[in-house]
Amino acid sequence: MQTDEKFMQLALKEAQDAYEKDEVPVGVIVVAHQRVIARAHNLTELLTDVTAHAEMQAITAAAGFLGGKYLNDCTLFVTLEPCVMCAGALHWAQLGRLVYGASDKKFGYTRQQNLLHPKTEVRGGVLEQECGELLQDFFRKKR
Amino acid sequence: MQTDEKFMQLALKEAQDAYEKDEVPVGVIVVAHQRVIARAHNLTELLTDVTAHAEMQAITAAAGFLGGKYLNDCTLFVTLEPCVMCAGALHWAQLGRLVYGASDKKFGYTRQQNLLHPKTEVRGGVLEQECGELLQDFFRKKR
Repeated sequence: MQTDEKFMQLALKEAQDAYEKDEVPVGVIVVAHQRVIARAHNLTELLTDVTAHAEMQAITAAAGFLGGKYLNDCTLFVTLEPCVMCAGALHWAQLGRLVYGASDKKFGYTRQQNLLHPKTEVRGGVLEQECGELLQDFFRKKR
Repeated sequence: MQTDEKFMQLALKEAQDAYEKDEVPVGVIVVAHQRVIARAHNLTELLTDVTAHAEMQAITAAAGFLGGKYLNDCTLFVTLEPCVMCAGALHWAQLGRLVYGASDKKFGYTRQQNLLHPKTEVRGGVLEQECGELLQDFFRKKR
């Protein structure tokens, strides 16, 4: 299995943890020099806080681990395309590389132009089907 | 003094607290039914966390006070036009009304289209000069 897919599997595991807590199942892993330095999953319901997206928590945790605000040397793996808020946070963090799974046609940051830092590399569609099916399954159960 | 200006003075007080901590001086007050329910100032340096903008902390605090994620009945007063990250968070929070002081031509959310919730009312330019001068003074000292 390729490296991106291997780390996305770990992000999917985080998303499944969210699913089991009845949270919208989105998971994140932050990797620096092939080492996982932060992991998080969506906790907006549990924390009653719209800012508690997986990416936001992971940015805070990764910066805490590194002892610095900037994530230039990091790759952030997230199971769903980030929203505008999270893309804005990734811009401030000067993220090195973003890898995401499923696309988010409704709330994804790519609806807007240039929200990420100009130096951030992006790869979408990694384990897209698995990442998307977990979300679809969650929302199907909610209806 | 008008009500908006009165509350913006409190937000300016928060911004001054940030200034004294050597943080970029931005302050926020959240008001519900004429009562201040949350106040915060930028703490990105102290917390080594790009997500620690005044608005983000205030959204978390206001939701904690209210016991619910949504700020439909709230007005958020902020001394500087919010950035993309904070506008995205205010969208998720379904903020009722946003009042800001100085404009941010470089990082302000109005460079993009429709980042806020469609129901959020907006008023900019309240105590614009005082809010802007505090920021200019801060960056002048940094040079």
